[in-house]
Amino acid sequence: MTPAQPAIAPSDRVRLRRKRERGSHDREVIDAILDEGLIAHLGVTDDEGHPVVTPTLHARVGDVVYLHGSAASRTLASLRSGGPACLTVSLIDGLVLARSAMHHSVNYRSVMLFGRSAPVTDPEEKLKALEAVVEHIIPGRWAAVRAPTENELRATAVLSMPIDQASAKVRSGQPVDDEDDYAIDTWAGVLPLALQPLAPQPDPRMPAARPLPSYVSCYRRPR
Amino acid sequence: MTPAQPAIAPSDRVRLRRKRERGSHDREVIDAILDEGLIAHLGVTDDEGHPVVTPTLHARVGDVVYLHGSAASRTLASLRSGGPACLTVSLIDGLVLARSAMHHSVNYRSVMLFGRSAPVTDPEEKLKALEAVVEHIIPGRWAAVRAPTENELRATAVLSMPIDQASAKVRSGQPVDDEDDYAIDTWAGVLPLALQPLAPQPDPRMPAARPLPSYVSCYRRPR
Repeated sequence: MTPAQPAIAPSDRVRLRRKRERGSHDREVIDAILDEGLIAHLGVTDDEGHPVVTPTLHARVGDVVYLHGSAASRTLASLRSGGPACLTVSLIDGLVLARSAMHHSVNYRSVMLFGRSAPVTDPEEKLKALEAVVEHIIPGRWAAVRAPTENELRATAVLSMPIDQASAKVRSGQPVDDEDDYAIDTWAGVLPLALQPLAPQPDPRMPAARPLPSYVSCYRRPR
Repeated sequence: MTPAQPAIAPSDRVRLRRKRERGSHDREVIDAILDEGLIAHLGVTDDEGHPVVTPTLHARVGDVVYLHGSAASRTLASLRSGGPACLTVSLIDGLVLARSAMHHSVNYRSVMLFGRSAPVTDPEEKLKALEAVVEHIIPGRWAAVRAPTENELRATAVLSMPIDQASAKVRSGQPVDDEDDYAIDTWAGVLPLALQPLAPQPDPRMPAARPLPSYVSCYRRPR
């Protein structure tokens, strides 16, 4: 696969040190994981130097990732004051059943994005970022709902993190066992897992006859 | 629901500050999320005070969570030197489609566990911890595979984190819209999502006739 965008030059922080065969600085790989992952885990350091990891919704637009939250959130406050952050997005693809306990693993794809974030204050960019977050959750939805009011926008903090210190890690395929262990009489292989939609649950406060939009009935994460 | 175990007395770090209605310090709620979540996101602070968030496998046994990794891993090295950690486990339960953009949300359950971890050096506890990790991935598997050798145990670092500073957050149910917005003519409701197994992929290096164990064919996360 030829990357559509140049790979990112790794900084010291993000350089892959272990299991190099699973690592990538390729923007195409990184962007695909950021886009497919429904949520991110955002790490910040608190006043006492302790790490705090919060699940959060995100959206990528070009070369930045947008985050949002209540203007009163303490995690976002730490970011707005310019503290360093690590945003990690992980996708689980399957269980790897080896013949020995220690070679069991999980097939996964993950991105770690390091950097500092900047508050988005321009009202137009803020609105575009929130549109991106809604469209990240469920593409096609933004046009079908009431847009944010000025008051709602004021109560919401939006931050952007540039994608310039990022790496991806991918584990895929069958187990890799010690050669002697291939003789062991146990089932070995991969059990793929995927985040899948179940039957939609209409809000009881909605008229029953309202049709289900195709972006709900045909929902799947981009891949 | 009556909790089988007493709720944990919240420390300052872990006290729920926002959206209190979604928070819990109940050990039964916390344990269920730790057990169902296949992976955790482990946050540590590096030498420069920057947060690093890594996806990792974990397993709960009673009042501790075990983590493991290569003895050479830099994330585990930070933990072994006694640095503070935040382990977060998040489950995605569904998309919440509201009538206004800003009330869109995700139904989720998450746990944040704060603390310092201790290396597990006792060989028997180390083995029990690794058994717990394999059984966390796929219950029933440990008895079917080759146990770790002494060399494998030496090359693997195992750490334990006590569950004494933890909180859970849960968002469930239908969207909560502004009263005026309930008149908007758009589909509203929840699209449930679940991490589900697809068709198993047998390792081509295994004899084709080997039967599929029921712990693979009937796999589901505990709930």
